[in-house]
Amino acid sequence: MIIKLQNSISEKDKQNIINTLLAKKYKTSEVKTQSGNYIVAIGNYNTDIRTFGKLKGVLDIFRVPDTYKFVSSKWKINPTEIKINKNISIGGRNFTIIAGPCSIENENQVTTIAKHLVNNNIKFMRGGVFKPRSSPYTFRGLGLKGLKMFHQIAKEYNLKIITEVMEISQIPQMYEYVDIFQIGTRNSQNFNLLAELGKINKPVMIKRALSGTIDELLQSAEYIFSSGNEKIILCERGIRTFENAYRNTLDLNAVTILKEKSHLPVIVDPSHGVGIRNHIIPMSLASVMAGADGIMVEIHPIPEEAKSDGQQTLNLQEAEDLYNKLNETVKLRNKILLHL
Amino acid sequence: MIIKLQNSISEKDKQNIINTLLAKKYKTSEVKTQSGNYIVAIGNYNTDIRTFGKLKGVLDIFRVPDTYKFVSSKWKINPTEIKINKNISIGGRNFTIIAGPCSIENENQVTTIAKHLVNNNIKFMRGGVFKPRSSPYTFRGLGLKGLKMFHQIAKEYNLKIITEVMEISQIPQMYEYVDIFQIGTRNSQNFNLLAELGKINKPVMIKRALSGTIDELLQSAEYIFSSGNEKIILCERGIRTFENAYRNTLDLNAVTILKEKSHLPVIVDPSHGVGIRNHIIPMSLASVMAGADGIMVEIHPIPEEAKSDGQQTLNLQEAEDLYNKLNETVKLRNKILLHL
Amino acid sequence: MIIKLQNSISEKDKQNIINTLLAKKYKTSEVKTQSGNYIVAIGNYNTDIRTFGKLKGVLDIFRVPDTYKFVSSKWKINPTEIKINKNISIGGRNFTIIAGPCSIENENQVTTIAKHLVNNNIKFMRGGVFKPRSSPYTFRGLGLKGLKMFHQIAKEYNLKIITEVMEISQIPQMYEYVDIFQIGTRNSQNFNLLAELGKINKPVMIKRALSGTIDELLQSAEYIFSSGNEKIILCERGIRTFENAYRNTLDLNAVTILKEKSHLPVIVDPSHGVGIRNHIIPMSLASVMAGADGIMVEIHPIPEEAKSDGQQTLNLQEAEDLYNKLNETVKLRNKILLHL
Amino acid sequence: MIIKLQNSISEKDKQNIINTLLAKKYKTSEVKTQSGNYIVAIGNYNTDIRTFGKLKGVLDIFRVPDTYKFVSSKWKINPTEIKINKNISIGGRNFTIIAGPCSIENENQVTTIAKHLVNNNIKFMRGGVFKPRSSPYTFRGLGLKGLKMFHQIAKEYNLKIITEVMEISQIPQMYEYVDIFQIGTRNSQNFNLLAELGKINKPVMIKRALSGTIDELLQSAEYIFSSGNEKIILCERGIRTFENAYRNTLDLNAVTILKEKSHLPVIVDPSHGVGIRNHIIPMSLASVMAGADGIMVEIHPIPEEAKSDGQQTLNLQEAEDLYNKLNETVKLRNKILLHL
Repeated sequence: MIIKLQNSISEKDKQNIINTLLAKKYKTSEVKTQSGNYIVAIGNYNTDIRTFGKLKGVLDIFRVPDTYKFVSSKWKINPTEIKINKNISIGGRNFTIIAGPCSIENENQVTTIAKHLVNNNIKFMRGGVFKPRSSPYTFRGLGLKGLKMFHQIAKEYNLKIITEVMEISQIPQMYEYVDIFQIGTRNSQNFNLLAELGKINKPVMIKRALSGTIDELLQSAEYIFSSGNEKIILCERGIRTFENAYRNTLDLNAVTILKEKSHLPVIVDPSHGVGIRNHIIPMSLASVMAGADGIMVEIHPIPEEAKSDGQQTLNLQEAEDLYNKLNETVKLRNKILLHL
Repeated sequence: MIIKLQNSISEKDKQNIINTLLAKKYKTSEVKTQSGNYIVAIGNYNTDIRTFGKLKGVLDIFRVPDTYKFVSSKWKINPTEIKINKNISIGGRNFTIIAGPCSIENENQVTTIAKHLVNNNIKFMRGGVFKPRSSPYTFRGLGLKGLKMFHQIAKEYNLKIITEVMEISQIPQMYEYVDIFQIGTRNSQNFNLLAELGKINKPVMIKRALSGTIDELLQSAEYIFSSGNEKIILCERGIRTFENAYRNTLDLNAVTILKEKSHLPVIVDPSHGVGIRNHIIPMSLASVMAGADGIMVEIHPIPEEAKSDGQQTLNLQEAEDLYNKLNETVKLRNKILLHL
Repeated sequence: MIIKLQNSISEKDKQNIINTLLAKKYKTSEVKTQSGNYIVAIGNYNTDIRTFGKLKGVLDIFRVPDTYKFVSSKWKINPTEIKINKNISIGGRNFTIIAGPCSIENENQVTTIAKHLVNNNIKFMRGGVFKPRSSPYTFRGLGLKGLKMFHQIAKEYNLKIITEVMEISQIPQMYEYVDIFQIGTRNSQNFNLLAELGKINKPVMIKRALSGTIDELLQSAEYIFSSGNEKIILCERGIRTFENAYRNTLDLNAVTILKEKSHLPVIVDPSHGVGIRNHIIPMSLASVMAGADGIMVEIHPIPEEAKSDGQQTLNLQEAEDLYNKLNETVKLRNKILLHL
Repeated sequence: MIIKLQNSISEKDKQNIINTLLAKKYKTSEVKTQSGNYIVAIGNYNTDIRTFGKLKGVLDIFRVPDTYKFVSSKWKINPTEIKINKNISIGGRNFTIIAGPCSIENENQVTTIAKHLVNNNIKFMRGGVFKPRSSPYTFRGLGLKGLKMFHQIAKEYNLKIITEVMEISQIPQMYEYVDIFQIGTRNSQNFNLLAELGKINKPVMIKRALSGTIDELLQSAEYIFSSGNEKIILCERGIRTFENAYRNTLDLNAVTILKEKSHLPVIVDPSHGVGIRNHIIPMSLASVMAGADGIMVEIHPIPEEAKSDGQQTLNLQEAEDLYNKLNETVKLRNKILLHL
């Protein structure tokens, strides 16, 4: 059960609500986000929740039977739109394209891609500076220095930056240079990192774990929300199965199901999903029809020379082809699926 | 290596070719299909294959390094179009909708659905009469009697029938009542059944196994082809993974990859794939963009009363909605992906 | 619910029982096996089953809530012992070693292995003559002729034969030459084959499917039992997962759980399980401690020259080492786990 | 290639070695651990490595073709024995039992279990104080305060503590109270945490990820080693598959393969593996035969009242039964497998 409190509620009234809940054997958690003030109460589902509705300071009460509460569409029916600035949002009725290299490599690379994005009216640039790599002996990114360079160029081109954060101590260091923090697939259940990202006021995009269930992804998102940050984006990036003909099994079933179970926007990453250049475009368009709110794709001026993930990276011409096809497909989707 | 022989080749010339191959340590298999006469030779990849090209009776030679040969797009680059009659084909530039109940139940059910299909300009009706069921104590279909009834009504409405065959002895019994034989997911590597279906002259649609790889599916198709039947349709129907939020993980990655690796048509079955009614439409449209040559979907006048699979079955109104959206999506795909 | 009938029950009394059940909305199936005469009734679990106990001809009644009935340990608590002849059994308190080549190749191979088995006091020899192979262009076994040769030598050495049957029409051809019919992993849900093997009076060993659940394996076994054959052996042979460091994930969890859920004997096949020669011995001994009733292992005089599966096949010296270690481990297990 | 340096090597000689390597297009990493001083060089495998052997300051050179280097048995053939104090070690010829509750709950619980362990001659006690939980609304452990209490009691009973660390900032806080740091399955690829644990001088036990491959586990271990800490223990705790009859698929194949590929000790956690109380004992004994160096098991005075994981926790009597059976099984293994 989620109890929405008046923002002006007095400490005394809040304590009274909590005590009433405790007396009925509920476990309570206080949650304060950018836009709301709540109590989550877990416990006996047979209580008549109207009892609590009459308590002073209570604005509204919702019963949410899922293990996740705030990220559930049973609590909030309308799709969430995350404002990046007054002109740009993710989710809601928007379709967002995020493109950029796997790794930030040098100024020339970033500038070339930034120009390409601006020419194609794309607002978000991805680029890793802290790279999670299976082996300790491979390139692990340019780090903070690379991020600052990335930030400066992005700012010049009026692009918003999304990049991965791997560790709590990186959050304050990265904060002013990042527009959206990304949680990588291997940190999808790094609960301390999630909770810490719940304390900031910037959007967080969380990727599904390698073999993470849909429920687990939503519970991880709940960690962020219940720590205070409502600005959450979900990302489907392929799961690990027995099949080896491609890199990961991009799971578009998850997209349509996440859109039903949650109000949060869902971005698809076909680059890590299918993971083979030839198949990025069809899988991106398929993602649109499955209900995605956007696509995050790896591009590079010369994929063959990319420091990482070259085999799944589009060159800039292929990327333009993708954007055009995405636009047409989104237009059709909006026409035929709008009433869904 | 596939050696295409002249249809008029003499037995003596053929033996000469085979002996030449055996002398070079190749293993040979003769293959005679509806439209061709071949020798498959497996062996030393360092031989200069032009040597064989000069032998009498040889029409053409292809090197195919895949484990499957005839179903590979390295042998036949253009997509295969399977003629059902002079007006109807599957594959090539067609998009095929196959719809019908999970199980054939009674005349009234079949007639209602048949009318619905005709009204929607659909040419293929599915319907199981031999039902593979995990438990021996559940409904296993109406059998041959049901098939005859199904056939009679379908004929009346000018619909083509696709239905599952579970066992070799059923093939001759079913033969005159069936237009396309379906091999179910649990028989996807029933090699004897595959080989036997290679001896008939009707199309065969083979489903991917529950945890079958793309390579295994193509090798199973190769069993049919190498036994003499070129009319093969592949079907992606969802794989088994760790995720339980839906029935099976419909794997659209497999669709785009199968279209690259093979010239055979690929049909998607979203009903068994995602397996939840609400999600059939988005996954069907996504399948189109992933490159599917068609969709096979379960429909029923009253899904709640269906003898099997009700939870994944569309009612007739939902089905019409699906057809309309499919048509628009296919139109867009043909426009934007045609040159792929 | 399983209703055990008197063997001498009259047709009229049986009909009366069935009619009583039907009147209470049960679905009924008659089952007649080598040793019993039963009615399986599926339906309302709220009925007082004692009502039926009083009907004429009823011997006993068991409530079995599992989807499988006869193979459940809720019906039959004591482990089943399958008599092969008056001296040899599988299951119960026995530990059975089955060894032999992947494929029967020639007389010399069979004789060498037969002698080795006799020297090591092993009673069961495996050997494939109908080989399921992913590719149609690989060796598919010597067929019936090979089986006859195998049978003759096995008889001479007083060995019992277990070999795979792939197709219904092979059953009568193979019948007199086979002691235990094996159902391969790819036919684990070939329900027609299962039902047909339910009509014979020889033991059947059924392998778990590549991604078959424990429940599905037991339901497949139920097909055999409910068709009339009680002599069923289960086989764990490794499942398909994401891991590629070995051939299949031999699932010893399944062994201990099958022993709890079912009264049927469980054999482990480490050769197809882990699938790497070095690891066969530890996994075999681990199987013993997990509760296996026996081991089926691939051996060959010269594994490097085996026509199939050489990399997972032990040579005869390694095999002897395995038998000795198995014997010691079984002895210990009997000592420490007997009361479980 | 691993180049072992003389401990007394001068900075100048080291630079000379590095420069020689760089000139040959190698990428180099310096590694300094508790007991050694190394350069890892990745590059051209065609070089004659004897060239480098002659350089001043080089003690030895090893070619290790695996992606992991120091944890590979190609570098160090003999099993590693990790000394905890002068009497207690893990690995080598030892078999280690670690037991304790899932979560540390209160003094009484800890004391009861500690006494039980001492009575059974067990040296290691597990117990979580920082608990990774899928949902933010469940019990997350007693934290540092709980650890201090745990430490005090453990010290009194002369028990060594193993407990999970979830976050870098916890390392210094926990350091003096912990004997072995555990990395949980969800942090198995938290590379920053791994690297940080590479800088301490206490043993680290790393669990395999939910769907982590054997190779990935070894590469994660390589992160710790290459950051300076040689004291690493691997832990198999079950992988995520399609099967739902148990909690996770405890993968004993991984145990025997890890013992071949690496010199590090391997502990099995059957509690999280099979995850059902009845099956803990057989799976533990099976682990011994598969080659495990030890077992970590969850126990509780009253499992039904445990704050977490009760269904997979043994009570103290069951635990004693397990220890006795483990001892007998280890004795047998040492007898029959020692020469392996």
